[in-house]
Amino acid sequence: MQQPPIGDVFGEMIRDAYAVRTGVGPRPLAGGRVPRPVIEVIERDDGLINGAPADHYLGEPDEWQPHDHRALRLCRGHVLDIGVGAGRHALELQRRGMAVTGLDTSAGAIEIARRRGLLDTVVATIDAYAAASARYDTFLLLGNNLGLLGGPERAPVVLDALARLANPGARIIAQGTDPYGTTDPVHVSYHQFNRERGRLGGQLRLRLRYRLLATEWFDYLNCSAAELEALIEGTRWRLRSVDEQDRPYYLAVMELVE
Amino acid sequence: MQQPPIGDVFGEMIRDAYAVRTGVGPRPLAGGRVPRPVIEVIERDDGLINGAPADHYLGEPDEWQPHDHRALRLCRGHVLDIGVGAGRHALELQRRGMAVTGLDTSAGAIEIARRRGLLDTVVATIDAYAAASARYDTFLLLGNNLGLLGGPERAPVVLDALARLANPGARIIAQGTDPYGTTDPVHVSYHQFNRERGRLGGQLRLRLRYRLLATEWFDYLNCSAAELEALIEGTRWRLRSVDEQDRPYYLAVMELVE
Repeated sequence: MQQPPIGDVFGEMIRDAYAVRTGVGPRPLAGGRVPRPVIEVIERDDGLINGAPADHYLGEPDEWQPHDHRALRLCRGHVLDIGVGAGRHALELQRRGMAVTGLDTSAGAIEIARRRGLLDTVVATIDAYAAASARYDTFLLLGNNLGLLGGPERAPVVLDALARLANPGARIIAQGTDPYGTTDPVHVSYHQFNRERGRLGGQLRLRLRYRLLATEWFDYLNCSAAELEALIEGTRWRLRSVDEQDRPYYLAVMELVE
Repeated sequence: MQQPPIGDVFGEMIRDAYAVRTGVGPRPLAGGRVPRPVIEVIERDDGLINGAPADHYLGEPDEWQPHDHRALRLCRGHVLDIGVGAGRHALELQRRGMAVTGLDTSAGAIEIARRRGLLDTVVATIDAYAAASARYDTFLLLGNNLGLLGGPERAPVVLDALARLANPGARIIAQGTDPYGTTDPVHVSYHQFNRERGRLGGQLRLRLRYRLLATEWFDYLNCSAAELEALIEGTRWRLRSVDEQDRPYYLAVMELVE
């Protein structure tokens, strides 16, 4: 079988998940079949394939994890929600009267976030957006988007881009997952395989698939809080606190070094 | 990325779905993470990939579709449940005091069916089992397993195997899906692609994937009732009735020609 074409996997998936949740959207009905949940398919470069229901990307606050609520309470000033997706967190901040901008590389996801009422949105990579004149007080990396730090090479690039967009005293609120609590031999072997090729154990190499489309392969980082602390050394950020109440999930707060 | 190794995809998936539903089973916990449903990943040879929750394979009667209930009311005598999986239908027949044998190619699925209490099980292909001395009055192909007829070449082989296992007056109760009601352009194009290469429109070429494993590619047939009628012509079976109350799903009853 040939390689699937590259496209806006996340956007197509979010559009369909929104159509299933709300009944609004262009998805053709499958000839009267029993409706099925929209599933995100994630391939890892050891051959692992996993599916996960996509509906949680549209979750209202009463469907969130506890750390999502604690993360929003840490926001202040102008907020940039990075990897905003369908806007679940940004919409709640906007409801609370806060200034919030949603950034995502997926045009399809931003389209749904706007349809749901999010007013200030940008379709761009963090790298491209770093040249913008806007300045922020809080950077949100929720929904495990600490993973967007990618790994030891990519993290300083991302953190530098955020520093360029930062007001004095700015913070990053990032939700991560410590991958090392698992006893699943498939994951334990993958961590070992990663270390042998000079990567962090939880430096996942992934691509997403949805229907006919795939993304390019990309790095997505699950790291421990200790690994995070090492990663940000030498950047303009320092680790201020790590909330590990919901292990293996955690909330890291980084602040700009003055 | 290399091709995934071939293995008992369905069995591994059913074992994990059973562990998630019941809390019983060997699956290592993923380091305290929020539990996720087990997802069956299905690839089609046009590059389409779909995920669907696997839990329905363990569904109790109150979770079934209406046609499942109507199918069981059509059973009589000794029943062979083909592609019995985790035994959802066979277990209910057994509870009702009927003689039922569960046949599946997946050793892992049969292991779970037995753990759930199914007494009479066989791990074999239909082709291999056709040499057995057992005789049946009803053959069940539920959960869309009319699809196991495969296509115009495979169907007569399967139907002949069942005829060899049949008592006089035996019936096949098969649940199928008419694929042609869809307006989804991805599926409409696939039907066209199939016809151009000399296949029935809904003659799917699929493989299943779960975690690190894949199945071989296999044909699985979604056909209309009219196509089914043409397929069984010249075999020892004739179409007795088609119940289309739950379109696009249908129940076909075939009976042995004396």
